[in-house]
Amino acid sequence: MGSKYQKSVRGPLTLWAFMLEVILILIFFFFTSYETSVKEQEKLMRTYRDFQDVIIMAVLGLGFLNTSLRRHCWSSVAFNLFMLALGVQLTVLLDGFLNQLSLRKMVLNLSSIQISTMSATSVLISVGVILGKVNLLQLLLMTMIEVTAFSATRMVGKEVFNMDNHISMMYIHVFAAFFGLTVACCLPKPLPNEAEDKEQTATSPSLFAMLGTLFLWMFWPSFNSALLDIPDEKKKALFNTYYALAVSMVTAISVSALAHPQGKINMTHIHNAVLAGGVAVGAPCYLIPSPWLAMVLGLVAGLISIWGAMYLQVCLQQTLDLHDTYGVQYTFGLPGLLGGITNIVLMALQGVGRGDGLGYQILTDSGAFSFTIIMGVGSGLLTGMLLNLKIWKSPHVVNYFNDQTFWKFPHLAVGY
Amino acid sequence: MGSKYQKSVRGPLTLWAFMLEVILILIFFFFTSYETSVKEQEKLMRTYRDFQDVIIMAVLGLGFLNTSLRRHCWSSVAFNLFMLALGVQLTVLLDGFLNQLSLRKMVLNLSSIQISTMSATSVLISVGVILGKVNLLQLLLMTMIEVTAFSATRMVGKEVFNMDNHISMMYIHVFAAFFGLTVACCLPKPLPNEAEDKEQTATSPSLFAMLGTLFLWMFWPSFNSALLDIPDEKKKALFNTYYALAVSMVTAISVSALAHPQGKINMTHIHNAVLAGGVAVGAPCYLIPSPWLAMVLGLVAGLISIWGAMYLQVCLQQTLDLHDTYGVQYTFGLPGLLGGITNIVLMALQGVGRGDGLGYQILTDSGAFSFTIIMGVGSGLLTGMLLNLKIWKSPHVVNYFNDQTFWKFPHLAVGY
Amino acid sequence: MGSKYQKSVRGPLTLWAFMLEVILILIFFFFTSYETSVKEQEKLMRTYRDFQDVIIMAVLGLGFLNTSLRRHCWSSVAFNLFMLALGVQLTVLLDGFLNQLSLRKMVLNLSSIQISTMSATSVLISVGVILGKVNLLQLLLMTMIEVTAFSATRMVGKEVFNMDNHISMMYIHVFAAFFGLTVACCLPKPLPNEAEDKEQTATSPSLFAMLGTLFLWMFWPSFNSALLDIPDEKKKALFNTYYALAVSMVTAISVSALAHPQGKINMTHIHNAVLAGGVAVGAPCYLIPSPWLAMVLGLVAGLISIWGAMYLQVCLQQTLDLHDTYGVQYTFGLPGLLGGITNIVLMALQGVGRGDGLGYQILTDSGAFSFTIIMGVGSGLLTGMLLNLKIWKSPHVVNYFNDQTFWKFPHLAVGY
Repeated sequence: MGSKYQKSVRGPLTLWAFMLEVILILIFFFFTSYETSVKEQEKLMRTYRDFQDVIIMAVLGLGFLNTSLRRHCWSSVAFNLFMLALGVQLTVLLDGFLNQLSLRKMVLNLSSIQISTMSATSVLISVGVILGKVNLLQLLLMTMIEVTAFSATRMVGKEVFNMDNHISMMYIHVFAAFFGLTVACCLPKPLPNEAEDKEQTATSPSLFAMLGTLFLWMFWPSFNSALLDIPDEKKKALFNTYYALAVSMVTAISVSALAHPQGKINMTHIHNAVLAGGVAVGAPCYLIPSPWLAMVLGLVAGLISIWGAMYLQVCLQQTLDLHDTYGVQYTFGLPGLLGGITNIVLMALQGVGRGDGLGYQILTDSGAFSFTIIMGVGSGLLTGMLLNLKIWKSPHVVNYFNDQTFWKFPHLAVGY
Repeated sequence: MGSKYQKSVRGPLTLWAFMLEVILILIFFFFTSYETSVKEQEKLMRTYRDFQDVIIMAVLGLGFLNTSLRRHCWSSVAFNLFMLALGVQLTVLLDGFLNQLSLRKMVLNLSSIQISTMSATSVLISVGVILGKVNLLQLLLMTMIEVTAFSATRMVGKEVFNMDNHISMMYIHVFAAFFGLTVACCLPKPLPNEAEDKEQTATSPSLFAMLGTLFLWMFWPSFNSALLDIPDEKKKALFNTYYALAVSMVTAISVSALAHPQGKINMTHIHNAVLAGGVAVGAPCYLIPSPWLAMVLGLVAGLISIWGAMYLQVCLQQTLDLHDTYGVQYTFGLPGLLGGITNIVLMALQGVGRGDGLGYQILTDSGAFSFTIIMGVGSGLLTGMLLNLKIWKSPHVVNYFNDQTFWKFPHLAVGY
Repeated sequence: MGSKYQKSVRGPLTLWAFMLEVILILIFFFFTSYETSVKEQEKLMRTYRDFQDVIIMAVLGLGFLNTSLRRHCWSSVAFNLFMLALGVQLTVLLDGFLNQLSLRKMVLNLSSIQISTMSATSVLISVGVILGKVNLLQLLLMTMIEVTAFSATRMVGKEVFNMDNHISMMYIHVFAAFFGLTVACCLPKPLPNEAEDKEQTATSPSLFAMLGTLFLWMFWPSFNSALLDIPDEKKKALFNTYYALAVSMVTAISVSALAHPQGKINMTHIHNAVLAGGVAVGAPCYLIPSPWLAMVLGLVAGLISIWGAMYLQVCLQQTLDLHDTYGVQYTFGLPGLLGGITNIVLMALQGVGRGDGLGYQILTDSGAFSFTIIMGVGSGLLTGMLLNLKIWKSPHVVNYFNDQTFWKFPHLAVGY
C-alpha cells in the first residue's frame, strides 16, 4: 500500500522524532548524572541479569508477538523497538522529575532503567489494539502520552493509595489494555471491506508470533519477580508464575480444541491464552502461599482468555464497532482484571489474619485498582481525541516502509 | 489434511487433557507446599539462572528443532510446549512421591522444578521419532508413561546402582531415543506413498530448525553442568561440553561435504551432528581431565552421527520398517551410547587410580547403563502397545489445527 | 546454482577442514591443560553468564544478521557457526602461545575462551563484506589468517602501546571492517549482471536478519563491558552502551524516513544504523561520565551509518569497484572510527586532568589505533592475494549446500 501523504507533509513528520531525540539529549545533559555510590555498583551485576530478562521480553517477546498479520509484520518489530527506545528515555526523565517533584539534577541507576523499561512496556501492549490503524507520528504521540500517564498513575498510586512498586507495576496489563481499547474506540472506523480484509488475515498465525509468545512465556517469571526484594516473596513470585503459566498452556490447548466444532486447535488462542496465566498471577504472585492457587488462577485465566477470543471479540466489534487487532483485551485486559481482584481479596485476607480493619484495606486496594483503570481510560480518551485531529491527515496509512523492499520481500525471502 | 475423527470422538479426547489438569491441581492442593527454609531461598537466584537455560533449551531448542517438516511445524512447537508443561507437573509430583515413597505432603523447591524440567525433556526427545504418526491424546498418554518410567528409572538407579543425580540424568538421551524407537516400532506403518511423501519432505531443512539447533548448541554446557555441585566438576563439565560442541560442528560441516558425491553439505546432517558432541560428552563431562579428550569425543560423535544419518536411517527402514522422523537415533541415541561407554571406562580408570576393585565398579556402572536402556525399551514397548489400541481410532491423524488457518498460513505469511 | 568444482577437487577441499581439526586436537593434547586453582573456579559461574551473552551475540546475532540475501541465508548461518567454532579453537592456542612466547604447556581458563570468542567475532564481522564471493575453503583460510593477525595485533598493542585488554578488543570493529574491505578489493570482481543481481537482492530485508539485529542490540552492553573489571567502569560501560543504542535506534528510524524521497523507512538502514551506537561507544564506554555524551555518540553514529549506506556504498562501488555485501563498512567501520577517535580525545582529556604530558598520551593512543587499522589492511591484503590464487578454482562458487534441499526449501518451508 503506497502512502497517501504528500511529500511536503512526510518530511516534517519524521523530523519531529529527530527533534524530540535532540531535546531529550539536552534534558539528559542538564538534569542527569550517573550514580556513583559503591553499594549500588556492587548490586549492579545481579540486577543486570534481571534487567536483561525484561529487555528480552520487551524487544523479542512483544516485538514478535504482533507479527502474525502479514501487512504489519515488519512495522510491528521495528516500531516496537522505536517506541521502546523512546519510551524508556522519556520514562527515565519523567520518573526522575516525579520522584523529586522538582527540576533538580537526578541520579540514574540501573533500577531506574529497569523500571523505565517495564513502564515503557505498557505502550508495547497497547499498540497491539491499534496496530494497522495509525501512522508512526501518531504512535510517537501515543508513546509520549501513555508513558506520562502511566508514570503519573504509579506516582499517585504510591503517594495516595500506598501501593508498593510491585503492585503498581503489575497493574500495567490492565492499564495498557484499557488505554489501547479507548484509543481504538476514538479512532475512525476502517471501511467495511478493509475491516474484512484485516479480519481475514488476523486469523493467520505465524511461527514468528509463536517465537514471541515463547520468549514471553519463558521470561515471565523474571518480569513478575523483578521488583520484589524480599527473598521469600521473590521465590513465591517465581514459583507461582511458573505453575500458572504451565497450567494455562495445558488449558489453552485442550479448551481451544473443545471450543472448535471439529475439535481443532486455533493458533490465535494459543498465542493469547498461554500468556493469560502469567498476567493473572502478576499482581498477587508474591502473596499466593501454595502452588494449587496459582494453578487455579492459570486455569481460570486460560478459560477467560479463550472465551474472550471467541465471544468478546465479536461482541465488541458488533456493539462498539471496536476492532482489537491482536486481542489485547483478552490476553492482557481480562486476565489482568482477574489478577487485580485476586490481589485485593488476598490482601484483605492477609489483613484479617493480622487483625487489621477489613473495610479500610479493601477500600484502599480497590481504590488503587479502579484509579489505574480510570487513568488508563482517561489518558486513552485524550490520546484518541488527539490522534483524531485532522493534522495527522490519513490515519489509516501505516506502511512507512519502502514499498519496493516491502513487497519484494516475500519473493526474495523464500527464494524465487 | 482434514481430520478423520467424528465430532463425537474429538470432544471427549481433548476433554481428557483438561480433566487431567484438574486432577493435577487437586493433587497439588493436597500434597504439596513451598519450601520455606531461608538457606534454600538464598540459593534461589543463582539456581534460577541455570534453570532458565534449561527452560530455553526445552522450549525454544527442542521446540524448533523439529520444525523442518512443513506438515508438522506448527504442531511441533505447540505440542512440544504442551507436553513440557504437562510433563513437568507430573514429574514434580512423581519425583516427590518416589523420593519419600509415601503419600505425605511434599516440599517443592526450585531444584525440584529444574530436575523435573530436565526429566520432561525426555518426552520432547522421544517425540521426534513419532511426530506425524500420532495424535494429541496419544502424545498425552505417551507423556504420562514416559515421565513415570524415567522417574522410576532414576529412582532405582540411585537406590540400587548408586548412581548420582548427574549420571542418571545424563542417560536421558539414550533412554529417550530407545523409548521413541520402540514406540515407533509398535505403531502401524504408514502406507508406502505416505512414507515416500514424508521421506521427501524430511530432507527439507528450515531456518527455524536451525534456530532450535543453535539454542541447543549455545546452552548445552548449562544442561550438562546443571546437576553438578562441586565447582571443579562443574568447571570441567562446562569446558568439556564447549570443546566437544566446537569440534563436532567442524566435523559435521567437513564430513557432510566429504560424504556427498558432489561435495555438498546436507543441512539435516548439520542439525543433528552439531549436537552429537554435546550428547556424547554429557555423562563423562565431569571426569574428563583435559580438553583433547572432549574434542576426540566430539569428533567421534560427529562422525557416528553423520554415519547414522547416511546408513543407519536407511538400514532401520529396510530391515525393521522403522521410520525415525527427525533422526533421534543418530542425534541422541548413538552419541548417548558413546557417552555412556566412555563414562564407564573413565569411572573404571578412576577407580583403578583409587585402588578399588576394577570388576565390581565396571559391573555396577554397566548394570546402571543397561538398566536405563532396558527401561527405555520396556516402557516404550508398553506405550507402543497401548497406542496401538483401537480406541484411539485413526492414529495417522495429527493435524489438530484449524485447517483454514493452517493451510492459509503459507500464503498469508509470505504476503500474497 | 550448481557447483563448478570437479568431483576430484571438492573432496580434498573439505578434507582439509577435517585434517586441520585433527591437528588442532593434537596440539591441544600436547600443549594444554585445565586451570585447577580454586580462586578461578569461584569466579567461574559469574564469568559464565557474561560469556554466554557473548556466545549468543556471535552465534545468533552475527549468524542471523547476514541472512537477508536469499542466496546465502543458509550458508550464512552454518558457515558463521563453522568459522566461530574453528576460530575459537585457533585463538585459544594462539593467545596461549603469544602470551608465553614459547611452546610450553598452557593453562586454559574460562576467560581465555571468552576472549577467544570475542576475537573470533572479527572473522564473523569481516565475512559480511565478502559473503557470496568466496567458497568454504577460502573462508577457512581467511579465518586462520584473520584470527592470527588479530591476536598478534592485540599482543603488540599490549606490549608496545600499553593498551589494556578492553581497548585492544574494542578496536575489533575497525580491524574487521578494514580487513574485510581489503580482502574484497583483492577478489576478482563479479560480472556486471551478477553484481546487479546481488545489488537487487541486497535491498531485501528479512525478519530473520531483524532477529539477528535484535539479539546484537540486546546483548551489546554485555559485549562492551565484558573485559572491564573495575565495577565503576563496568557500570559506565553498561549504561553508556544502553543509552547510545537507544538513541541510535530512534535516529535510524527518523533519519531513514527523512532520507527517502517519499519518506519511507529502509529496513537495511535499520539493520545497520541501530547497531552503530553500540559500535561507536565501544572503546570509550568506560570513560564517558554522563549519559548525554553517550547519547550524542549514538546520534552521530546513527547519522554516519545511514549516510554511509546511502552515499559511501555507491561511492565505493563506483570508484574502487568494491561491493560490500552486508554494509560492514558503515555498520562497523565508520562508527568504529568515530569510537576510536572519541576514545583518544577522552583519554587525552583525562590525562590533562591528571597533569600528564598531553602530547605523549595522544601520540601513543593514536599510534595504537593506527597500528590496528594498518594491521587490518595489511593482513587483509595478504589474505586477498592468497584467496586470488588459481588453486581455489572458481571463487564465485559458494553454494555448498545440496542443491536439491536448497532449492526445494522455499517450497517446502512455506508449505505447498
